[in-house]
Order: sequence, then structure tokens, then C-alpha cells
Amino acid sequence: MNVLIVYAHMEPQSFNAALLARARAVCAARGWPVEVSDLYAMNFDPVARPTDFTARHDPDFMRYDKEQRAALPAMGFAPDIAAEIEKLRRCDLLILQFPLWWFSVPAIMKGWIDRVFALDFAYGGGRWYDKGGLAGKRALIATTTAAFGQMLAPDGINGDLEVNLWPLQNGVLAFCGFDVMRPFLAHAVPYVDDAARRDMLEAFAARLDGIDGETPMAFHRRDDFDRQWRLKPEVEPRTVGHYFARVPPAVRAKLGR
Amino acid sequence: MNVLIVYAHMEPQSFNAALLARARAVCAARGWPVEVSDLYAMNFDPVARPTDFTARHDPDFMRYDKEQRAALPAMGFAPDIAAEIEKLRRCDLLILQFPLWWFSVPAIMKGWIDRVFALDFAYGGGRWYDKGGLAGKRALIATTTAAFGQMLAPDGINGDLEVNLWPLQNGVLAFCGFDVMRPFLAHAVPYVDDAARRDMLEAFAARLDGIDGETPMAFHRRDDFDRQWRLKPEVEPRTVGHYFARVPPAVRAKLGR
Repeated sequence: MNVLIVYAHMEPQSFNAALLARARAVCAARGWPVEVSDLYAMNFDPVARPTDFTARHDPDFMRYDKEQRAALPAMGFAPDIAAEIEKLRRCDLLILQFPLWWFSVPAIMKGWIDRVFALDFAYGGGRWYDKGGLAGKRALIATTTAAFGQMLAPDGINGDLEVNLWPLQNGVLAFCGFDVMRPFLAHAVPYVDDAARRDMLEAFAARLDGIDGETPMAFHRRDDFDRQWRLKPEVEPRTVGHYFARVPPAVRAKLGR
Repeated sequence: MNVLIVYAHMEPQSFNAALLARARAVCAARGWPVEVSDLYAMNFDPVARPTDFTARHDPDFMRYDKEQRAALPAMGFAPDIAAEIEKLRRCDLLILQFPLWWFSVPAIMKGWIDRVFALDFAYGGGRWYDKGGLAGKRALIATTTAAFGQMLAPDGINGDLEVNLWPLQNGVLAFCGFDVMRPFLAHAVPYVDDAARRDMLEAFAARLDGIDGETPMAFHRRDDFDRQWRLKPEVEPRTVGHYFARVPPAVRAKLGR
């Protein structure tokens, strides 16, 4: 199993760095080749720009996804994008490892997604979800927070973490075909003691060691949707983003929707 | 009413540019002073870095939010951050205008949030939600999509847009105290005709013209939560991220949760 770890942390002494080192060790022990895109160390530019393409398909009007589509067949991407696309092609397991900033990835990782998950490579032309361009690969979000777990519970002050991660787990990863594993979450990292942090490192190592045998999270398949791209009536909503399709009207009224 | 428009699009002929021009015109007609942070034109750097501070509070270990806290009293931020903080201080209405990329903001705007919404300025020390650092200001997300509206409906293939926008609308804006207006959404922009795009421009102008009289969306207040930061039992969950607190166990089982 080829592993690609995309990593976004600027402090080499951080707990994130310790998680990364642990992940490398587990992969080495299992004989899994690892590539690491250490975005800060690479000084990765997260801004999608016209210069991301070696030639312009439409020099008069910049539409980024159309330029991606035009660039793909001959890999006419800037070298930093082309290199990441090749890493993504090679991997069987993608790990996105980052501190949770504003309930999402840091900008340097958002830009890695914006620039690398190109139209017709990662998705496109109806190749969505289980038909996505990256189908057959596994993905895992591994993230650290400065909040206690109960603050990210369904009734917590920050709201359900599964809702907060939906745009990443469904909208990016499952959408492009990945089998998405349950996220690895290390909560309140700055506030717990060393023993608790050691426990989290061990838990991460155990998760990774067994990741090839895990059952992915449930997301809908493309064929659960009709030709208007709505859930077929006979399909039960199974994921957070679609649950509201069946929320009773009285409840929806309370939610002001 | 002072208006700050933070804008992220690289093509001056884009529909986003037309929305921006329309917003400027409405503000001029209403006599509202406008500042625009045109992130691409400014070549804004979205990457949070150690050099974001004129002096290091802890030179041995980089914890970004702690450095923000230490920098705030004497405004010891890099000039580009300091300028944006001052704009945010001056504004009564913040408009985030962007094309929806991966169900979120483009990286250049994510980094504007990462770097500018500093600890103790935008939030912190329990100043969350209606007690947040930016309380008393209004915020509006204005975004364009390349998807048809029904694809972002509760039963649509991409899932409920309100779920997708929850991390931004609740996790960033409401969390820091903003009164969050319903988002302005222009769907399927590349696929509709000029007349439809003109209608969307008019609809945006009408929204902005009346924005000072609009009722904000419902998000929980800080005091809806107990000392463990969980919803008090007597408080009815009102927003998408907290709804799962009261989802019946049988339904949750179906969702695999």
C-alpha cells in the first residue's frame, strides 16, 4: 500500500510533527512506501493562479477548472502541481494531517486541494462519488484541535464535528471517489498532559496499523441519485448532508428553514 | 454603514467581478463607505507564517494563536495583517465574496481568515458567538457555484448547502459575533444565459439595498451552553450543527452514528 501524507504544520516540535513521525514509523514497519508532502517545508504556494498552466487554453477569460481540463492530457501544469498529481496517482492511502483551523484545513492545505484536485483528474464529467477519479483509494483525515471533545459533540458549542467535516469528507474526498475512513481526532492538544498526548500517539499508530482492514464511512453512491441529481425516493438518506431531506416539516420550521 | 468587501476572483471579466461592481454601486447610492480587499489584486499571502509577527513571544515554539494574542496589544503584526484588522474594525458589514471552491472559500480567502481573525481580536477568552470580538457587525456570504440549485438541496447530490456552509457561517462568522445574513447564492453561473445572470445581479443589488433591515439567521448564543459548553437541556437545538443532539436513536443508527 503506497501512502501519501499531506502535512501542514509550521512547528517541527509540534504534536502534529510527532504524529507524522509516528505515521512514518508505522508505515515502515508495515513495509508501506511513504511519500510526504510537507507543505510548509516545501513552501507550497496555495493560490490558484493563471500561471498554474504551461499554456492557456483560453487566454482571454480565466476559468480555472476549464484550464485544468485542457492541461490534463499533456500534463501542462506548473511543476509543483504536476508533482502532487503524480503523488496522488501513486498512492493507495491519502492522509491529510493538519491542525483544525476554523473547522477546516489551513489555507496552505486548502490550496493544495484547489490546485491539485483538477477537473477530469479527480472528478468531472459525472465521475463523482464511487465513480470519481480517485476511486479505489482510501483517505483519512488526521487532525488536532484546541477544543475539548464535548465542545464538538452534537450538542457542543461548536456543533457536531461530523457536520463541520462534511465539506471535506463528503465534498472533497468522497466526492472524488475516496473510501473515507473515520477521522482521527486529537482533541485539546495544548491543554492535556504528556501522558494523554502519548496515548493519542499510540491510538494514532494503532489506527494506521489497521487502516487497511477498516470499513469506510457511509457516503452515498452516485447511482443513489436520479437524473436531476436528487436522492431517489427509495433511497434512505444515510449521511449528514442529506438527512434534512427527511426531517419532518414541524422540525424544519423550528430550525427556521 | 461602513462596508468591507473581501473579494477572491482572479478574472476581471468574471461574474464575480460584475457582482463586486454592483455592490460598489449600491453602496455608493446608499452613501455607505466601501473598502474592498481584492485579494488577488493585492497578491495577498494566505499562508500563516512565523514572519507574521514583528517580534516572537515564544521564539522556541511556534503556536500561532498564542503569537496572535501576544501581538495584539501593540499591533505587532506584519503590515498586511495589521491593515486587514483595521479594515475589519472599521466595518459594520463584512461581505465575503467568492466562487465556491470545494464547498468553501478559495485558499486565498481561507488564509485571510486564518491570519486576520486573530485570537483576542475576533474571539477568545470565552468571547464567542454573541459575545464574540466582532459582535455588532453584520456579515454576508455572497458566492457563485457551478452547480444547479437542486444539487445543493437537502436531497441533492452535494448535500444541503446549509450544512456545507455551516463551518463558515457558524464556525467563523457567528462564532466571532457577527450577525450572519442568509447567504446570497448565484448558482450554475457558467451554464445559465445572460438574462439569468442579469437577474442574479439585480437580485444581489436588491439584497444589498435592504441588508440593513434584514433579520439575521438564527445561531445559538453563548449562554445557551452550560459550563461544559453543551446545550442546556431546556434550550431547543435551532441550528444544523446542533440538530443531531435530538435526533432519535433509531435514526442515528441508520446514519451509522
